[in-house]
Amino acid sequence: MSRRMVLLTWGYSNPSIAKTAAGLLRYCPGECVAVFDPDNAGRKSQEFLEAGGDIPIIARLDEAPSANTLVMGIAPPGGRIPEAWRVVLLEAIGRGMNLLSGLHDFLSDDVELAATAAKRGVTITDVRKNNFKQIAKRTGFNPSCLRIHTVGHDCSVGKMVVSLEVTNGLKKRGVDAKFVATGQTGIMVEGSGLPLDCIVSDFVSGGAEQLVLENQHHDVLLVEGQGSLVHPSYSGVTLSLLHGCLPHAMILGFEAGRVTVDGLEHVPLPKLVRIRELYEAMASIHQPCATIGVAMNGRRVTPYEAHEIAKCVEAELNLPVVDVIRDGPDRLVDAVEQFRNCGHWRTFGK
Amino acid sequence: MSRRMVLLTWGYSNPSIAKTAAGLLRYCPGECVAVFDPDNAGRKSQEFLEAGGDIPIIARLDEAPSANTLVMGIAPPGGRIPEAWRVVLLEAIGRGMNLLSGLHDFLSDDVELAATAAKRGVTITDVRKNNFKQIAKRTGFNPSCLRIHTVGHDCSVGKMVVSLEVTNGLKKRGVDAKFVATGQTGIMVEGSGLPLDCIVSDFVSGGAEQLVLENQHHDVLLVEGQGSLVHPSYSGVTLSLLHGCLPHAMILGFEAGRVTVDGLEHVPLPKLVRIRELYEAMASIHQPCATIGVAMNGRRVTPYEAHEIAKCVEAELNLPVVDVIRDGPDRLVDAVEQFRNCGHWRTFGK
Repeated sequence: MSRRMVLLTWGYSNPSIAKTAAGLLRYCPGECVAVFDPDNAGRKSQEFLEAGGDIPIIARLDEAPSANTLVMGIAPPGGRIPEAWRVVLLEAIGRGMNLLSGLHDFLSDDVELAATAAKRGVTITDVRKNNFKQIAKRTGFNPSCLRIHTVGHDCSVGKMVVSLEVTNGLKKRGVDAKFVATGQTGIMVEGSGLPLDCIVSDFVSGGAEQLVLENQHHDVLLVEGQGSLVHPSYSGVTLSLLHGCLPHAMILGFEAGRVTVDGLEHVPLPKLVRIRELYEAMASIHQPCATIGVAMNGRRVTPYEAHEIAKCVEAELNLPVVDVIRDGPDRLVDAVEQFRNCGHWRTFGK
Repeated sequence: MSRRMVLLTWGYSNPSIAKTAAGLLRYCPGECVAVFDPDNAGRKSQEFLEAGGDIPIIARLDEAPSANTLVMGIAPPGGRIPEAWRVVLLEAIGRGMNLLSGLHDFLSDDVELAATAAKRGVTITDVRKNNFKQIAKRTGFNPSCLRIHTVGHDCSVGKMVVSLEVTNGLKKRGVDAKFVATGQTGIMVEGSGLPLDCIVSDFVSGGAEQLVLENQHHDVLLVEGQGSLVHPSYSGVTLSLLHGCLPHAMILGFEAGRVTVDGLEHVPLPKLVRIRELYEAMASIHQPCATIGVAMNGRRVTPYEAHEIAKCVEAELNLPVVDVIRDGPDRLVDAVEQFRNCGHWRTFGK
């Protein structure tokens, strides 16, 4: 049965918090029937979530009679469900819709929701729920599969988007590339992956390694990054992922104009050039790993500002700086192909 | 009711794997009645676990009639229970003993063990079991509480031992110091703490921060380190802890003669001087953090070799290098007091 999704973003209809909705609208628009947000009903998803075009925002589930799935469209810090949503969830269950969630608070552990869903015969899928318990072994990597990892100066700068855009760009050129999802939205888009930020900490790098081992029959993997090495709350997830997927090269993402850490506005972000050094130092402990391109998220700035900032960063980091939303991923795809063709990475490690 | 413990190490009676038993023998010898290991029965714990003196190794639980607690004495990679132990656990329950475990595989989730324990009226305590779900906020730190963090070039080099020895050394000098436990053995020794390697990854730095907030009424905290920034399996736990406790200074531990990563012998360890650089870079992102001393674990080398290696490392790193087991913690305690008295750290951050 194919998914016909209503995306619940009520109270949070902006692309920074409603990351899951924005990702599904961008990469699975054919499966998105509507966005549920009574405060903005009658408008279009594109206006609020920067994706989805004319997909409507609705105030009542009966406005989307064909829908079979209600998706929790947000990924708030800590991942709890807004209490005001409960009534919507119960109504969706009553209408025979399945629930799909990437929150840390598992819907299937909620006694009322679980009982109601069971009675109505619908399923609750918690994408983050897992019992993964394997440590990374650093063995078995396929030396002819190129591993590219998207990292960032902060959370929510578009690492998933860049991974998907570059993957799709490579595919268009005939390269056997694969997007490797490591977070809830990516998993919903791709239909596979592991929610690394919800694995018990000892096993996170094991999870990243497992994803590589499962997918390394492809020629190029684009492994979606998480968090940031300089984010006080999530840096450990970032490092586990970096060491678990052991990339040959990285694409570094940043948001133009962002100067403080996402969610911790009292904490300043270090300069991008320093963050690049930290990533390269931590990525290169056991085999070389270079940054081959920079992905700029330009949503806070005008096209003119974006252009000026990109020029500065290009000069400072001596790397292509690309806003994949405004300009497409071509120059980053070029960078991956160039790195791949130079072939030096084939001599690294196992 | 006070603990009278039998430490189960059957098949694993060496201090590297039976870390929990070795830690309890060293720091809670008055509560340890015996070590259970039929293969070495009749011998003394000191011989096999380098601690505990004359505490006997036994082959049958009825040799320790006063014991009220059976402790899983090992901390294997991945943390599973050896299947051969099941009969011992069931016998212990039958004798009315409680079970105490720090394994990742929770004994209380084992249907047979849980049912048998409930019937017999004894408790199963899984030290690693937790439902901690708070992200780090990087606020509320007490600026007059000095935070010292023990880190290491690898797992199992004695970070807990060094933390406890330096804490005890400071206390002897009248300083209000507190050991902050972050792993299963430390928690069993101290009676408080959080098992950071078993928290869901997004919340590990939140857990470390929480431990600081709970204990910062003391003048000095010695926060026990976990893993290593260069360990492919556990580096993320290490970084979450480092960023969550936000230390003013670090003590760097290493084992003399160890050249490959613990449990991953195909992965070489970087040089100690490089590892120090990585720790200082990652610890100093938002406020300065220096290494103030080096703790050498000399168990693999002779006293003469230990002395020679310590001299070399002192010269290379320009820091005091101390084997706290052979020589006592005094020079590291001096280093902490000197750093504390210089007072510069009081100007850092919040």
